[in-house]
Amino acid sequence: MSGKFLVFEGMDGSGKTTQAQRLVAWLESRGRHPLHIREPGTTPAGERFRNLLLDPTREAWDPATEALLFFASRRELLLQEIRPAIEDGRDVVCERFTPSTVAYQGTSPELATFVLALDRLVVPNDMQPDQVLILDLEPEEALRRATSRSEADSFEARGLPFQAQVQNGYHRYAKERPESTTVIPVGDCNPDEAEALVLDAITHLFT
Amino acid sequence: MSGKFLVFEGMDGSGKTTQAQRLVAWLESRGRHPLHIREPGTTPAGERFRNLLLDPTREAWDPATEALLFFASRRELLLQEIRPAIEDGRDVVCERFTPSTVAYQGTSPELATFVLALDRLVVPNDMQPDQVLILDLEPEEALRRATSRSEADSFEARGLPFQAQVQNGYHRYAKERPESTTVIPVGDCNPDEAEALVLDAITHLFT
Repeated sequence: MSGKFLVFEGMDGSGKTTQAQRLVAWLESRGRHPLHIREPGTTPAGERFRNLLLDPTREAWDPATEALLFFASRRELLLQEIRPAIEDGRDVVCERFTPSTVAYQGTSPELATFVLALDRLVVPNDMQPDQVLILDLEPEEALRRATSRSEADSFEARGLPFQAQVQNGYHRYAKERPESTTVIPVGDCNPDEAEALVLDAITHLFT
Repeated sequence: MSGKFLVFEGMDGSGKTTQAQRLVAWLESRGRHPLHIREPGTTPAGERFRNLLLDPTREAWDPATEALLFFASRRELLLQEIRPAIEDGRDVVCERFTPSTVAYQGTSPELATFVLALDRLVVPNDMQPDQVLILDLEPEEALRRATSRSEADSFEARGLPFQAQVQNGYHRYAKERPESTTVIPVGDCNPDEAEALVLDAITHLFT
């Protein structure tokens, strides 16, 4: 039995961590031993790249440059954490993966295409997620949640056009890989309702 | 008139810097204003990536991860230095570019293919070098030069199989882009003889 690779996506405030923790608990209740990780970071290389990307003193980079850094981090995460766990029969629950790079660095159709091509190159077919769960918020709701959180200086607080770009990128990814992506509108859901929708989308992998 | 993009390649000790300086002098003698740069480095982002790549305390990375970092550095160099200079009518003489990544990170046929695919993705067609000059050394001669230099702890001092892999990678690149690559055997050349061969290979671009 090999493990399943499950990815939670969505803007800050969409509930990724909460839902990932609930899914981990659900998997454990079924006698499985999931690994819960998040991107970037987790590996020593990922930490280095994360520090570079988030360094507030750094000069501006082209979005394609940022995307290359995220994929460098992703490559190490795949080889050092995700693949060994999956081969060991463990499920992997990961917060953020390629869809985040499409959403945040895909600031034009050309850049979104570039990121998706990079994904095909860097992530082997047999290491693509079994299921991506996009916790979807409308731009207005995403902005409301971002500005009410303490990290009001985050990417998400940049305003409505930015929120709309990110949502667009997520939808673009979902269109590209419809067989393994579920878009879950969570704007009007409480965590229990969102969890029920998540379980609906993934139980077929565990029966 | 737009400038020409010229790349010198070859192992440490092959004479890249000497030949680049001579070509710069030759271009200046013809009233041109070449820009002389080297990879990685040159841009602030490139310096950051270079420090990461060369950090002796870092953990080992997958060659594909290293390649992604080199291309991140290359992307910034292209956008910030090479393209503006070329559009300004200046020639660019660059020590090392994509062929180095094929040679040093292409440690298997799959990885060499990966690096070449990354090149097609990251370096737009109209920003590919007009001419790549590979200063070619046989593995034995490359090792002899590497061990007689002060940087005997460099990549090049790793031994004959490594030298042979690097030479292979350079030849692989030349086969992939024959119309814009010249392999110049410099093992038995003095600098004047090598310069004559370099000028033979590039004068057609300036007539």
